[in-house]
Amino acid sequence: MPRIAYVNGRYLPHRDAAVHVEDRGYQFADGVYEVIFVVDGRLVDAPAHLARLHRSCASLRIAMPTSDRALEAIVASVIARNRIGRGIVYIQITRGVARRDHAFPRIASRPALVVTARTHPAPDETAVRSGVAVVTVADQRWRRPDIKSISLLPNVLAKEAAREAGAHEAWLVDDAGVVTEGSSTNAWIVDRDGRVVTHPADTAILDGIVRRTLFRLANEASIVVIERPFRLAEAMGATEAFLTSSTSFVVPVVAIDGSAIGTGRAGPVTLRLRDAYLAHLGRAAAAR
Amino acid sequence: MPRIAYVNGRYLPHRDAAVHVEDRGYQFADGVYEVIFVVDGRLVDAPAHLARLHRSCASLRIAMPTSDRALEAIVASVIARNRIGRGIVYIQITRGVARRDHAFPRIASRPALVVTARTHPAPDETAVRSGVAVVTVADQRWRRPDIKSISLLPNVLAKEAAREAGAHEAWLVDDAGVVTEGSSTNAWIVDRDGRVVTHPADTAILDGIVRRTLFRLANEASIVVIERPFRLAEAMGATEAFLTSSTSFVVPVVAIDGSAIGTGRAGPVTLRLRDAYLAHLGRAAAAR
Repeated sequence: MPRIAYVNGRYLPHRDAAVHVEDRGYQFADGVYEVIFVVDGRLVDAPAHLARLHRSCASLRIAMPTSDRALEAIVASVIARNRIGRGIVYIQITRGVARRDHAFPRIASRPALVVTARTHPAPDETAVRSGVAVVTVADQRWRRPDIKSISLLPNVLAKEAAREAGAHEAWLVDDAGVVTEGSSTNAWIVDRDGRVVTHPADTAILDGIVRRTLFRLANEASIVVIERPFRLAEAMGATEAFLTSSTSFVVPVVAIDGSAIGTGRAGPVTLRLRDAYLAHLGRAAAAR
Repeated sequence: MPRIAYVNGRYLPHRDAAVHVEDRGYQFADGVYEVIFVVDGRLVDAPAHLARLHRSCASLRIAMPTSDRALEAIVASVIARNRIGRGIVYIQITRGVARRDHAFPRIASRPALVVTARTHPAPDETAVRSGVAVVTVADQRWRRPDIKSISLLPNVLAKEAAREAGAHEAWLVDDAGVVTEGSSTNAWIVDRDGRVVTHPADTAILDGIVRRTLFRLANEASIVVIERPFRLAEAMGATEAFLTSSTSFVVPVVAIDGSAIGTGRAGPVTLRLRDAYLAHLGRAAAAR
């Protein structure tokens, strides 16, 4: 069965899924996206992703290319056509095609919409729970990473730096020494009192959907979460550390820049939160 | 005659010029570009543009998709097929198509190459010499605007802010109050002693080809050019101001944020430099 992609009104074989070279996403990074996890063919936290997609578009004054109902139908169709049980849906919206000029097109372009999906097998849970290493790099991004734009070149370079260092992720450190977030994940630590700390959702980070879900799950588990900036030095001395994303959920961080964090093994608070999130995924699947 | 574009080895009607939705330029802004002016079918300062394209690719570790000779032949063909006398050639190189993942593809992707061209009529010289207004906005770009990448979303937003303010360009001001450059142009002022001042070509600006040509032309005209950061307050009190780019050359700036600069009219140093640059263009055309 060939993979099928949705591109601007058409369902196409993946290999034929193309956009014009003057799509402003290609020439200017003038677009936004969402990555949504799928469990048993069902989107996880779809309303939160859709709301963020609206916010991203509104921030850049890109009109939504379809109604929410139409978008949901397209996404459901892409999931069905690709027979995705457990996987990932990718939605990208750009300002559309226009003669190249930095400013918004004078005659509004039709926003472009691309939806793709792929399967994403369950990870080896034992391996995940052994934790990952992260390295740190300077946060070189533009000033509005809170907008989930496709302007991701610094994130690409950071992730590549991590991979080349044998690490799973790069944590981004600003001029004040504060860890803002990872290149494609949010960053968290656990202090000596078992409280969880993560950067506030201001303009310096992308407010992850898992991040927000975890606030609720932590509260239900009587785990205190504090939103405040933390410096790298504090992270190095933390009891536990972890990262979150829609595709990796909650992953223990056991080393930063080669130094062990806490015991050098996944910590109990992190693992409780991962379990809570896995249960959340199970509920999402069961909620049909 | 339909416009023709070059895309990854093929010359296509412009309307059919497309790239895959998983081209990393579309999903990650993982690419670079050049805009080269054409006079009488001939590229202006081609070696400098080509050298910068090499530097941009090297900075991101994107391999050049063709030899220089092949690229020059492709560009010449696009110019010829579109019968460009006076116009613009646009060259874009990205890391190519790969399954979506922030880090560089593990199996190196084939870099993508797109070349387009369009005519660009001579401006109304009298109108240009009356000067333009600029507004200022915060410089929100990533930390490496010296790389001519397609990660241009902040530039888009800045240019749009200028247009909506009725201005021609936005000058970007960093946290220290320094004017780095414009959203798609370099920024210059003239001090009371007739010396020209522009930001040094460090990582904070894109080192324009016109900018570098102008250093030489100014020297030939016994005009002193100083590369140093200047603050917005100094620009507001400057005798003259102007901007440069490959497509607009040297354009007087007669107002910043609504306040007149100098006499509020194009200044003599600016106009001498514009004339010198127009002569340079004429020599480029004659140099076949």
